[in-house]
Amino acid sequence: MEEQHYSDDVYGRARVNDTPELEAYYKELETLGAGALWTVANDIEPWEPRPNSVPMLWKYDDLRALVLKSSELVTPEQAGRRVVYLVNDKRKDVSAAVGWLYTGIQVTRPGESTSAHRHRASALRFIMEGSKGYTVVDGNKIMLEVNDFVITPNSTWHEHGVEADGQTCIWQDGLDIPLVNALEANDYAVFDGKQPLDVPLNYSPKTYSGVGLIPADVQWDKPYSPLFKYSWSKVYPALLEALEVNPIDPFDGIHLRYSNPLTGGHVMQTMSASMQLLPKGFKGKAHKHTGSFVYQCAKGSGYSIINGKRFDWKERDIFCVPSWAWHEHHNASETEDACLFHFNDLPVIEGLGLYQDRILTENNGHQIIS
Amino acid sequence: MEEQHYSDDVYGRARVNDTPELEAYYKELETLGAGALWTVANDIEPWEPRPNSVPMLWKYDDLRALVLKSSELVTPEQAGRRVVYLVNDKRKDVSAAVGWLYTGIQVTRPGESTSAHRHRASALRFIMEGSKGYTVVDGNKIMLEVNDFVITPNSTWHEHGVEADGQTCIWQDGLDIPLVNALEANDYAVFDGKQPLDVPLNYSPKTYSGVGLIPADVQWDKPYSPLFKYSWSKVYPALLEALEVNPIDPFDGIHLRYSNPLTGGHVMQTMSASMQLLPKGFKGKAHKHTGSFVYQCAKGSGYSIINGKRFDWKERDIFCVPSWAWHEHHNASETEDACLFHFNDLPVIEGLGLYQDRILTENNGHQIIS
Amino acid sequence: MEEQHYSDDVYGRARVNDTPELEAYYKELETLGAGALWTVANDIEPWEPRPNSVPMLWKYDDLRALVLKSSELVTPEQAGRRVVYLVNDKRKDVSAAVGWLYTGIQVTRPGESTSAHRHRASALRFIMEGSKGYTVVDGNKIMLEVNDFVITPNSTWHEHGVEADGQTCIWQDGLDIPLVNALEANDYAVFDGKQPLDVPLNYSPKTYSGVGLIPADVQWDKPYSPLFKYSWSKVYPALLEALEVNPIDPFDGIHLRYSNPLTGGHVMQTMSASMQLLPKGFKGKAHKHTGSFVYQCAKGSGYSIINGKRFDWKERDIFCVPSWAWHEHHNASETEDACLFHFNDLPVIEGLGLYQDRILTENNGHQIIS
Amino acid sequence: MEEQHYSDDVYGRARVNDTPELEAYYKELETLGAGALWTVANDIEPWEPRPNSVPMLWKYDDLRALVLKSSELVTPEQAGRRVVYLVNDKRKDVSAAVGWLYTGIQVTRPGESTSAHRHRASALRFIMEGSKGYTVVDGNKIMLEVNDFVITPNSTWHEHGVEADGQTCIWQDGLDIPLVNALEANDYAVFDGKQPLDVPLNYSPKTYSGVGLIPADVQWDKPYSPLFKYSWSKVYPALLEALEVNPIDPFDGIHLRYSNPLTGGHVMQTMSASMQLLPKGFKGKAHKHTGSFVYQCAKGSGYSIINGKRFDWKERDIFCVPSWAWHEHHNASETEDACLFHFNDLPVIEGLGLYQDRILTENNGHQIIS
Repeated sequence: MEEQHYSDDVYGRARVNDTPELEAYYKELETLGAGALWTVANDIEPWEPRPNSVPMLWKYDDLRALVLKSSELVTPEQAGRRVVYLVNDKRKDVSAAVGWLYTGIQVTRPGESTSAHRHRASALRFIMEGSKGYTVVDGNKIMLEVNDFVITPNSTWHEHGVEADGQTCIWQDGLDIPLVNALEANDYAVFDGKQPLDVPLNYSPKTYSGVGLIPADVQWDKPYSPLFKYSWSKVYPALLEALEVNPIDPFDGIHLRYSNPLTGGHVMQTMSASMQLLPKGFKGKAHKHTGSFVYQCAKGSGYSIINGKRFDWKERDIFCVPSWAWHEHHNASETEDACLFHFNDLPVIEGLGLYQDRILTENNGHQIIS
Repeated sequence: MEEQHYSDDVYGRARVNDTPELEAYYKELETLGAGALWTVANDIEPWEPRPNSVPMLWKYDDLRALVLKSSELVTPEQAGRRVVYLVNDKRKDVSAAVGWLYTGIQVTRPGESTSAHRHRASALRFIMEGSKGYTVVDGNKIMLEVNDFVITPNSTWHEHGVEADGQTCIWQDGLDIPLVNALEANDYAVFDGKQPLDVPLNYSPKTYSGVGLIPADVQWDKPYSPLFKYSWSKVYPALLEALEVNPIDPFDGIHLRYSNPLTGGHVMQTMSASMQLLPKGFKGKAHKHTGSFVYQCAKGSGYSIINGKRFDWKERDIFCVPSWAWHEHHNASETEDACLFHFNDLPVIEGLGLYQDRILTENNGHQIIS
Repeated sequence: MEEQHYSDDVYGRARVNDTPELEAYYKELETLGAGALWTVANDIEPWEPRPNSVPMLWKYDDLRALVLKSSELVTPEQAGRRVVYLVNDKRKDVSAAVGWLYTGIQVTRPGESTSAHRHRASALRFIMEGSKGYTVVDGNKIMLEVNDFVITPNSTWHEHGVEADGQTCIWQDGLDIPLVNALEANDYAVFDGKQPLDVPLNYSPKTYSGVGLIPADVQWDKPYSPLFKYSWSKVYPALLEALEVNPIDPFDGIHLRYSNPLTGGHVMQTMSASMQLLPKGFKGKAHKHTGSFVYQCAKGSGYSIINGKRFDWKERDIFCVPSWAWHEHHNASETEDACLFHFNDLPVIEGLGLYQDRILTENNGHQIIS
Repeated sequence: MEEQHYSDDVYGRARVNDTPELEAYYKELETLGAGALWTVANDIEPWEPRPNSVPMLWKYDDLRALVLKSSELVTPEQAGRRVVYLVNDKRKDVSAAVGWLYTGIQVTRPGESTSAHRHRASALRFIMEGSKGYTVVDGNKIMLEVNDFVITPNSTWHEHGVEADGQTCIWQDGLDIPLVNALEANDYAVFDGKQPLDVPLNYSPKTYSGVGLIPADVQWDKPYSPLFKYSWSKVYPALLEALEVNPIDPFDGIHLRYSNPLTGGHVMQTMSASMQLLPKGFKGKAHKHTGSFVYQCAKGSGYSIINGKRFDWKERDIFCVPSWAWHEHHNASETEDACLFHFNDLPVIEGLGLYQDRILTENNGHQIIS
């Protein structure tokens, strides 16, 4: 992939050659907790966004057995939560899958439930398999089905379980733990026992169940969506309807963002999530932008080319796209659509004024696989 | 109905007795385009909100034949639009149904269509009967079915019609024409011919068809909802779902507000609309608040008591509740729910800081019919 | 002044001729509280904004003696407030100076003070003469000097007075009483006695006294400015500084809007105010826009041409510009600047999406005096 | 300092003991780019915010000579900018003074000027000494005086200099470079030559020079303040006025935040700044909160106790307070006030929902020096 090549040998960049006098000067500065900016300036002021992560794919075929095995090796009481987390080769120090985002795969067996806790970090889940799983968020118990998307925002009490007559549930967790730790703001508390249920089962999704409808007397001052679950049973038909009347985005197909119905904004303050449909035969073009992304294939199969490398995925596979990495998505099927769920840190990137993107122009917009 | 009784014979109110000297003084002021405030102060500074309208009910049984007759008496070409408008006995000077809101009943026969126009005033429709009716709003043609709610916001080009193979359509129009005229800001323009269709049929409702889903690349900077139609086929199930998990509001039953999915706010800048479901056997309690309301019964039957007078309504009947009028709604059926659509000027009243309400406390919260 | 001429004899306007059959039809409708839209449509849907007020000028030379006389004729105890109000020839029914805005001139003698009251209507004052006048707004006593601008927002307790060692104070009041009455939302309450002073003298202006500075721990959730007084001693220098570095606006010279320092928005929800400086020799061009305006000359002299009629003003004169009236302002002096204070209903007009303007293009942008 | 002590040996925390079987399992996970959450959970989910920085003080007496020496050792052409940066002992890897904030001391001699550049990172300056220094931000040249605060927001072109007849200028730079790098979003561009001056000298501060005054025709859609300079000549009097009428905050004395006059919000999207006045004899109490802070003493002298350690400061000294560090400020003088300037990352912390604070309750709110 071509990249713009920049030279630091220009006016406006640091171009100082070491001398014995300067070296002595640097030493003196160091004793005072100081340094000369020009010795680090070109490094800390890169010409373009510089990601710290690498693209990775985690195949569900590889992981599923190990995830299930965790439920034999440790109990929820011992582990807190039985989760296999996915870690980027370049982000092991912060346990991140990409950038400052954590992801993991959690398993819960029928009849199991965890204790309730809360943390400053925000969390989301995307359901992979099983039945009669549920989450309880701030006193609201909500049933989960495959491909449902649920949130447990910043500092909400939450716990999960599977009814005794259900089937083992596996879901993907997404959290901003690495970010909140980096910002030195995380905390943690354990709920004493199980949460009392303050409202009827599925209160949140049933209360906000209408398109463009809001309870007339709504009183909600929280900085996240009052809609905690986005049902696949409503999301997939919406994708199909949108497909009927909208042009196909050359990069992302049909692309709907989960939103807070009270603001139109992101579902939480630090993480956003979307579902995209790649129509049959879709061959996406390449672009890159700031922000870190974790994908899960929710339907169908295909491949993504990320920074010139091809990653083949099918249902339940998980992969990541680092900030400023070229990426394009392809549906491998000529007869069926494919759907990609993803979550990202765009609320952070956009909110702080750090979003930018670039479109690949050569080779008809497609990367050359390296 | 008891009301608080205020005396103007208190310190802080005007209590000046006329004298010859004062009368001469008033005359002198008058010649200069001036007056003494204390001669009008108590009148222009009422103790409580003072409505100018009276409660009224318009029975569809009375009006339907006359509405249909208009389609024999005049052509769309002559009339512009064939509408019977409903006028408050106390607001004939401004052609308002209540407060500063206009409402009318429009008829369109199969194969007919109007020319396109636009105005600073905002409009909305609630479909009463017929099939294959449509509206075109800023280049987007949208099909209409009974009990659908549609908007044609401030300064959007709009036109309506019924397909040749449809059935005569009747709908209620709601506009803020009296308000915009009072604010000396209305205007009008005729489109030269019919609007070109810029997007596929039903683009707007199909694009925003998912609960809490927004096109990821949405670019919408208009001060009104991008969702132009709220389908009864989605609204009624949402009411039923909300009913399952929410307490019944003692005044309004289950009460959902049509909202702009991008902001959670009102659908337009000057008018809001809602649908409420009165469960079987519902006996609403009385309250009053500022803001003017026009109702249409969308389902079932019942009655409302407004300022101590009972108004019986059934499907398609229209009635109004003036600002600060006591009102309570009753479902007449013990076996079926009833639904009331209404539109109002709450965006104005709330936006300008003029909303207040009061709950009736005596007689167990019910008015005594006078 | 040329105006665009519109014909109603076009497709899209009502063009129905009366017939005996139609007249019978209209009568029948009338008995049902209804009418045929096409009989009123062209009237209630004007081609352009249609003001109900006329331009007027109130000369202070004429009014001052009468204002002072009111303080001999009635006591504050009798009158509530001793105010001469200025009324538009076409708005006597609503006691408005222009559109839905009220204005009056209030006099208070040394040692006098009024009782405290509040109302849903918002108020503002512009100080014309005197010394040691004060207002108390929600427990904050604030001293007033000539050309200071102060607000007493919606539902704040307020009272006014002049210290015993001061000089008779005269100020202009501006209120939205006609608007709030028209919207059927006004109310009134008398404070029992005088307000206790909750904060030190001049708390509000001294707390917000720095350009771009806000108390770090500010907790203010009210929909109006926490800064209650805008001192001429700071406003006039700001105009001069802005004049140094800004181009002169061809319509309004140097034009600064009083703003809420916490939002940048209007000072109150229903009324805005500004001060403009017309540089020496300034000959403003003509434009028109929606919104009603009341001006007071704060400094210098000049004239305004409004809808083709010339109005000469000097310090303390008050005049009005109705919605959609052509207007241009001229400084009569070639050696000194002139300053015009004005207040208006732009928060309403803008907030409801009703603002529009037009620039006069012929005759080099100047009206021909009729 | 007492701290709450938490045990991880509770239900809801990870308490898994290693076994050979588990170790094999972990190895297998590792080969797949995965791990078991319970092996890291307690570490990445701390009970309380956990800072990575230590409190530090940089004495100007130590640094000033070295800063001036840099202007002898390297030219602006070589160094880009001649800056001594201050680095936290625990943040050398990211060149940060505290948390994700960079700070440095820049020197410019009379007649020198730098080339223009821009970057996604935002910058601010606080002037320490000299005269006739200036900055040029997006075509607006602005003169700088001691204790002035200026901003060069995200992606604005900027350059600095000192007029030939001025005196050597030294100022503190503050940037969010470490944060923007961590978020993988920084970029850099060099302006070809010097910026053309688009507006008159000091356009920005002179246009926004009035308290609560905004140009009536302002068109500003940028996410940062249009006011680029906050003059000490206006800030200090504002502190004194606020002191007259406000209670002294027990932690921060009189504390005014530099704000965007168009929104009341922070001056930039990622960094905020404030000035606080510690009255004579002020003995601040201790609290802690999330967010990283860099202080400079602008006036007087005193000391701060940070996490139990005392740091004495006087005019021009710089120190930092890490996230969640206990801190209290003391004015050492019984006769003169002291002023502390600081900048911080609160827009990030607050905007992402990560702010929390705690007040020290024991020992009458004062830390015991360790």
